[in-house]
Amino acid sequence: MSVTVVGSIAFDAVTTPFGERSRMLGGAATHFALAASFYDTVDVVGCVGDDFTDADMALLGTRGTRLDDVERVAGSRTFTWRGEYGWDLNSRETLSTELNVFAAFDPSLSDRSRSADVLFLANIQPQLQLRVLELCERPRLVALDSMNLWIETERDALLEVIERVDCVLLNDAELRQLTERPSLLAAAGELLSWGPDVVIAKQGEYGAALITADGFFALPAYPLESVIDPTGAGDTFAGGFVGYVGRHLDEPMGNEMLRCAVAHGTALASFNVEEFGVERVIRLGAEEIEERVTELSRITQFEHAPIGLMS
Amino acid sequence: MSVTVVGSIAFDAVTTPFGERSRMLGGAATHFALAASFYDTVDVVGCVGDDFTDADMALLGTRGTRLDDVERVAGSRTFTWRGEYGWDLNSRETLSTELNVFAAFDPSLSDRSRSADVLFLANIQPQLQLRVLELCERPRLVALDSMNLWIETERDALLEVIERVDCVLLNDAELRQLTERPSLLAAAGELLSWGPDVVIAKQGEYGAALITADGFFALPAYPLESVIDPTGAGDTFAGGFVGYVGRHLDEPMGNEMLRCAVAHGTALASFNVEEFGVERVIRLGAEEIEERVTELSRITQFEHAPIGLMS
Repeated sequence: MSVTVVGSIAFDAVTTPFGERSRMLGGAATHFALAASFYDTVDVVGCVGDDFTDADMALLGTRGTRLDDVERVAGSRTFTWRGEYGWDLNSRETLSTELNVFAAFDPSLSDRSRSADVLFLANIQPQLQLRVLELCERPRLVALDSMNLWIETERDALLEVIERVDCVLLNDAELRQLTERPSLLAAAGELLSWGPDVVIAKQGEYGAALITADGFFALPAYPLESVIDPTGAGDTFAGGFVGYVGRHLDEPMGNEMLRCAVAHGTALASFNVEEFGVERVIRLGAEEIEERVTELSRITQFEHAPIGLMS
Repeated sequence: MSVTVVGSIAFDAVTTPFGERSRMLGGAATHFALAASFYDTVDVVGCVGDDFTDADMALLGTRGTRLDDVERVAGSRTFTWRGEYGWDLNSRETLSTELNVFAAFDPSLSDRSRSADVLFLANIQPQLQLRVLELCERPRLVALDSMNLWIETERDALLEVIERVDCVLLNDAELRQLTERPSLLAAAGELLSWGPDVVIAKQGEYGAALITADGFFALPAYPLESVIDPTGAGDTFAGGFVGYVGRHLDEPMGNEMLRCAVAHGTALASFNVEEFGVERVIRLGAEEIEERVTELSRITQFEHAPIGLMS
């Protein structure tokens, strides 16, 4: 099996209370691929400018990620995002977004990317997501991320893609905005009625929730003494979650498996935020992921024994 | 055993997107007592005005809560809070706070209140919390709640009380503000170093976390299709949590027991928010609480089996 991801490849300039980086490899497809490559071979579909060096390309290709469909466009510059986080990292201000080479991005997929079993449509224009989906032959699992901008400005196109995917990953506020339902559970239920089988509510420092027709599951974020840079945490989560699900396509997509997938996404995301950008994840080992998944299981379990309450 | 709580008894005027109430029984001591009375007999220490009717008193005394130490002050009016919630209930604006009878509150405790095994110092001025703590003889468990106002204006007095309690319940933002640590885990660790053995981080719609020297535990809120009024959820949580811990004072305060206490607090709080004010909790049955605790266990468990990741 293999995983294809389409999405941004970026240079990020990030300031957090704990330091700053002026030009670090980032972008949704990058973070996703670095995480998903623990589970399967990943093909990245995207574009960069000629300021994207061979060293950047090598970093993106960590753990065997295939880059044949990453187009390096002469005379263009790579997508750039600049942002700054507040003191407890819960607020983020975007200082600038330069689409650059992405403004004219027209994805073309190699035969191999097209034939992937798993397709992740990272957060880009819904029209691009739809085009890539149509280029693919018969992915057995399609997952999608999006953002408030597209919900506001490209709602119809976004709904058209959503109807055709298996899994939607959004944060709580986006789920509410998209469905116009104030309750998270009601919002997720509404979204399930549009076609997808799985909704993931990303909740930042509070972890993530999984909602399917079979029920609800929530997992806290892995507790860390120190978080340095949350950039890319959601895409790293998606890489772990989608990667894990992709490894289990030959069995029915049951809740037990999906819960473990959430745990893997959560573990991956926790490493991502411990250092700037991709710095931690590129030198991560598989056994470290397993350890945190086990620890996540430990910090969420309790044994309930009735005690005889007063009435 | 018995539980004594000191804190506000109030009339709340609340507007949420789902309706409004102009004068409903509220206040921290009220919500706490209604929840804790499932676990033990509760004595409430507080004061009300002569606008507080016998019917209000009867409501406060639901499930046998004892009201001998609730002073009804002639010529005074009951503490009143007016507030309005935003569309997804995550933002709240206080429209007015009238201390009224609470402005001159000088708590006096009956022998029975003084001899309680468990003391809950609900969110009031730290000086009052300290006075009540000093009036008590030898409570085996003392828990405390507070708020941003006291952290800002009465920090020294608050620290003096905190050093003398076993358990502190605050929301995430208050924990960060109090300790000046941006990381929740670091903030809780700092607080533990000041004396308490247990820190509860209240996280609203995301549930609650428990931090002790032995480790970390987090539990999501009970998932609800519809939340009507979050007022009092934190105090209701405290009632379930402290009530449960109080029932286990004769055993070592282990993490397994504390986790169950968090689950009980979470279950109680979930009922509280389903209707306005105390409307749901006053007609709650013990078996309903047990059912939700069991369900909370179901929606948080996962079985982890290593899958062999790629390196």
